[in-house]
Amino acid sequence: MEPLRPQRRTAARVLDTLTPALILLSAGAVTAEDGGAMEELTTEKEAEESHRQDSVNLLTFIMLLTLTILTIWLFKHRRVRFLHETGLAMIYGLLVGVILRYGIPATSYHNKTPPSCSLKEGPVSTVLLNISGKFFEYTLKGEINSREINNVEQNDMLRKVTFDPEVFFNILLPPIIFHAGYSLKKRHFFRNMGSIITYAFLGTVISCFVIGNLMYGVVKLMQVLGQLTDKFYYTDCLFFGAIMSATDPVTVLAIFNDLHADGDLYALLFGESVMNDAVAIVLSSSIVAYQPSGANTHMFDAAAFFKSVGVFIGIFSGSFVMGAATGVVTALVTKFTKLHCFPLLETALFFLMSWSTFLLAEACGFTGVVAVLFCGITQAHYTYNNLSAESTQRTKQLFEVLHFLAENFIFSYMGLALFTFQNHIFSPIFIIGAFISIFIGRAFNIYPLSFFLNLGRRHKIKGNFQHMMMFAGLRGAMAFALAIRDTATYARQMMFTTTLLVVFFTVWVFGGGTTPMLSVLHIR
Amino acid sequence: MEPLRPQRRTAARVLDTLTPALILLSAGAVTAEDGGAMEELTTEKEAEESHRQDSVNLLTFIMLLTLTILTIWLFKHRRVRFLHETGLAMIYGLLVGVILRYGIPATSYHNKTPPSCSLKEGPVSTVLLNISGKFFEYTLKGEINSREINNVEQNDMLRKVTFDPEVFFNILLPPIIFHAGYSLKKRHFFRNMGSIITYAFLGTVISCFVIGNLMYGVVKLMQVLGQLTDKFYYTDCLFFGAIMSATDPVTVLAIFNDLHADGDLYALLFGESVMNDAVAIVLSSSIVAYQPSGANTHMFDAAAFFKSVGVFIGIFSGSFVMGAATGVVTALVTKFTKLHCFPLLETALFFLMSWSTFLLAEACGFTGVVAVLFCGITQAHYTYNNLSAESTQRTKQLFEVLHFLAENFIFSYMGLALFTFQNHIFSPIFIIGAFISIFIGRAFNIYPLSFFLNLGRRHKIKGNFQHMMMFAGLRGAMAFALAIRDTATYARQMMFTTTLLVVFFTVWVFGGGTTPMLSVLHIR
Repeated sequence: MEPLRPQRRTAARVLDTLTPALILLSAGAVTAEDGGAMEELTTEKEAEESHRQDSVNLLTFIMLLTLTILTIWLFKHRRVRFLHETGLAMIYGLLVGVILRYGIPATSYHNKTPPSCSLKEGPVSTVLLNISGKFFEYTLKGEINSREINNVEQNDMLRKVTFDPEVFFNILLPPIIFHAGYSLKKRHFFRNMGSIITYAFLGTVISCFVIGNLMYGVVKLMQVLGQLTDKFYYTDCLFFGAIMSATDPVTVLAIFNDLHADGDLYALLFGESVMNDAVAIVLSSSIVAYQPSGANTHMFDAAAFFKSVGVFIGIFSGSFVMGAATGVVTALVTKFTKLHCFPLLETALFFLMSWSTFLLAEACGFTGVVAVLFCGITQAHYTYNNLSAESTQRTKQLFEVLHFLAENFIFSYMGLALFTFQNHIFSPIFIIGAFISIFIGRAFNIYPLSFFLNLGRRHKIKGNFQHMMMFAGLRGAMAFALAIRDTATYARQMMFTTTLLVVFFTVWVFGGGTTPMLSVLHIR
Repeated sequence: MEPLRPQRRTAARVLDTLTPALILLSAGAVTAEDGGAMEELTTEKEAEESHRQDSVNLLTFIMLLTLTILTIWLFKHRRVRFLHETGLAMIYGLLVGVILRYGIPATSYHNKTPPSCSLKEGPVSTVLLNISGKFFEYTLKGEINSREINNVEQNDMLRKVTFDPEVFFNILLPPIIFHAGYSLKKRHFFRNMGSIITYAFLGTVISCFVIGNLMYGVVKLMQVLGQLTDKFYYTDCLFFGAIMSATDPVTVLAIFNDLHADGDLYALLFGESVMNDAVAIVLSSSIVAYQPSGANTHMFDAAAFFKSVGVFIGIFSGSFVMGAATGVVTALVTKFTKLHCFPLLETALFFLMSWSTFLLAEACGFTGVVAVLFCGITQAHYTYNNLSAESTQRTKQLFEVLHFLAENFIFSYMGLALFTFQNHIFSPIFIIGAFISIFIGRAFNIYPLSFFLNLGRRHKIKGNFQHMMMFAGLRGAMAFALAIRDTATYARQMMFTTTLLVVFFTVWVFGGGTTPMLSVLHIR
C-alpha cells in the first residue's frame, strides 16, 4: 500500500482556491460515445459494492450487540457486578475500533482518490457535477479538516462507521427517553418533584457556568503556554459546560434497580438525570443561538444573555406542553375509539403517536427529548389505563426492547468512536482541566442546593445521599450525542475527544464503584 | 415565485463539459478572513434547518400511518371489506403526494441554486470541494437527468421524501419477510412444498421470460412508432419481467386470513408469493450481472445465460444455507445458555440474530430475503421451543408490530411516490403492453404448471383454485422495491412508472375483488 500514498497526496494537494482546479485522473476518462453501457455497469457495480459495505457496517454493530448480550448474560448468571452492561458494551466497542483501525489494511483505493474542485461561495447542501456529459447529484456530508484530506482515502471503512448524529437524535434517543418517562415510578417521583426540578434546572445551569468559566481559565492557560493552535471562544467553553452538565441515568440506575436501593434516592437521581438531559440540550442550543452574530467577540453580553434565558424558557415550556398534549390526544383517541378490540392497531398507534411527539417538537423548533419525556409520563398516567390488557403488556415490552437495544448500541458506538473518529485532538491540559472542573461543577450543584432544599423539605436529604448523588454524576450518552453533533471546528474536536474520555472514565470507575460506594455510605 | 425561475435556469445551464466551469454565484463569496465566524454560524443554522426538515419528512410519514391505522380501525369496526388496509395506505399516500406536489409553493431557493462544476472521469462516490479555503466532503446521491436539473431547486421537499432504496432493503424488508417465515403454518406449507417450489421457481422464471419477451415486442413496436426516445435493451425487458414476476403476499393473504379460507389454497398462494419474492430478487440481479460487460449488444448469449443460471443456483442455495444456519445457531445458543431467565436479553438476542442473517447474507453477496425467510422458518421450528414463555409471546408480538408498521409504511410510500418522484415517464403503449403481458405471464405460470402438478398430486389443484391463484397475482412491495432500486436510465424510469401503476391497479382491483371472487368461484 505504502508506495501509492505519495501519489495520492499530490492528487489531493492540487486543490487550490485560486485556480479553479479540474483534476483529470488517468483512470476514468471515457468518451461519452462508447462509454455509456460500461459506465452504467460501473455505477451499478459501485452501488452494489456500497450496499454490501453498508451491510457489513450494520453487521459489525449487530455482532457487537450480540456479543454484549451474551456477555451480559454470563455476568448476570455469575452475579458479577463490578462492570455494568453499558461499560461492557463500551469495551467491546473499543476492541472493534482497534481492530478496524489497526487490523484492517487500508483498502486499495489507488484509482479512487476523491477528485475535487473549487467553489468560492459558502458550503451548500447540493452540488451538481457534470461528468462526461452526465449530471450527478452530490450531497454535503460535512466539512473536513485539511489534516484529514490525506486520510480520506486511507480507510474508507473507518469513515463509514462514523455515524450520523441525525440517526442518534431521531431514532435512538426517543425510545430511551420515552421508556424512562413511561416506566417512571410516579409516587416517588412526584413526591420529590420540587427537589428534582431544582437540581435539574438550577443545578445544571450552575454546573454549566462553573464548568464553562473554569474551562475558560484552562483555555487561557493553554494560550499562555502556547498549547492552543486555533481559536477557542468563551461561548465554546460555555457550550462545553452545557455538554458536560448532562448526567446519565443509565448505569447507576440499572444498578439501583437491581439492588432495590432507597426509593427517594432513586427518584432524585433518576429525575435529575432525565430532566437535565433535556436541560443540557436546551442550554447548548441556546448558547449556540446566543453567539452574537457577525461579531467576533464571543464574549459575555447581558442583552443576549437575557434573550437566551427567554429562549430557554420558551423552548422548555413549549416542549412540555407539546409532549403532554400528544399524550392526552392519544389517551382520548384510545378512550373513544374502542381500538382495544384490535391490540395490534392499538400498539402501533401508541408507538406512532409517541414517536410523532418527538418529531413534532423537533419540527417546531422545540426539544424533542423534553416533549417525549413528558409524553411518556402522560401516556403512563392516562393512556395506559385505556389500553387493552394485551396492549399494556405489548407496549411495555416493545419499548423495553427498543430501549435496551438503543442504549447498548450507543454505548458500543462510543467505544468504537475512540478509535474510528479521525479528528481527535488530545490535549492533556484540557482533559485534566475538564475532569477537575466537572468535579467542582457537580459539587456546586449538589451541596449548596441540597442545603437550601433541606431548609424546606420534611424528609431531609441526608449527607450520605448527597455524597451518593455527587458520586453518581456519570456522563453518558447525552454528553456524547451533544458533542458529536458538531465536530467541525478545532474547539469542538477537542471537546469531543475530552467528552469521550470523561464518559469512559465515569462509566467505568463511578459506574463500577456504585455497589461498593453504596455500602461505604451505608445506604440500603 | 415565477419571475425567479428563468434566472435559476440560466445558472443551471452554464454547466458544460468542455469548459471546466466554476460558477460564482453573487450571494456567497465571503473572503476567508472575516468570514470564519459567520460561516460557522451559517453552517450551524443550515444543519439545524436540515434537521428540522428531516423531522418534518419523517413526521409526514408517521402522520400518514397514524391516519391509516385509525381508518383501518373504522373499516374493521364497520366490517368494510372492499378496500384493504394496504390499499388505504396507498390512497392516503397519494393524497399527501398531491398536496406536496401541488399544494406547497416551491420554496424560495433563489440564492440556493446548486452550484456545479465539471469532472471528466466516471462518477465517484466521494468528492472534495474547496470552498474559500475550507474543504467539504460530498457524497454521490445519484445521477440526474438533464431534464431534471431545472427541477432540482424547485421543490426540495419533494426530493427529500423520495426515499433511499437502501432503507427499504436493509430496514423495512427484513421484518416483513421474517414475520412471514416465523408465522408460517408449517403443516399446510410442507404438505404443498413441491407445488410451491414449482410455482415459485419454475413459474416465476417462465413468467419472467414470457413478460420479458412480450415487452421486447412492445418496445420494438414503440421504436417503429417513434415513441421511444432513448435506448431500451433486451436485458432491460428481461429485467422488467423479473420485477413483474414477484407477486405480493400481503393483501390477498390478509383477507384469506380474515375469512379463514381453505388452508391448502392459502399455503399455495402464500408459499408461492413469499418464495417468488426471493426468486425475483435473485433473477433480477442475475440479469444485471448477465449484461455482457463492455459489449453493446445486450442480446441473448447462451454462455452468459448458463452463467446466470449458475449464479442463480449458487446464490439461492447459499442464502438458504446461511438462513438455516443462523437459525440453528440461535436455537443452540438459546438451548445451552439458560438465557431464558432473562427474557429481555433473550428477545434482544433473537431479534439481533435474525436481523444479522439478513445482513450477513447481503454482505456475502447472497440474497438477504431468502436467508431471512429460511431463518424465520428455522427459528419457528427450533428456537421457538427453547424460548421462555414470555419471550415466545414477546418475539411474536414484536415482529407483528414491526411487520405491520413496515408494511403500511411501504404502501403509503408507494402512493406518495406517484406524485413526488420527479422522473416519471408515462408511456401508454408500454403500460398497456405491460398489463397484457403480465396477465399472459401469470397464465403461463399457473395453468400449465397446475396441469403437470396435478398429474402427480393426490389432492388435485382444482380449476377454481387455479383461477383464484391467477386472480391473486397482485404485485406489491417487492416489485416496487426492485423498480426503485435503480432509476438512473430512461428505460428504468419508464419501468418504474409502469410498475407503480401496475401495483396500484392490482392492489385496488384484485385486492378489493378477492372476497367477491372467492364466492364467485365457490371457495370457502
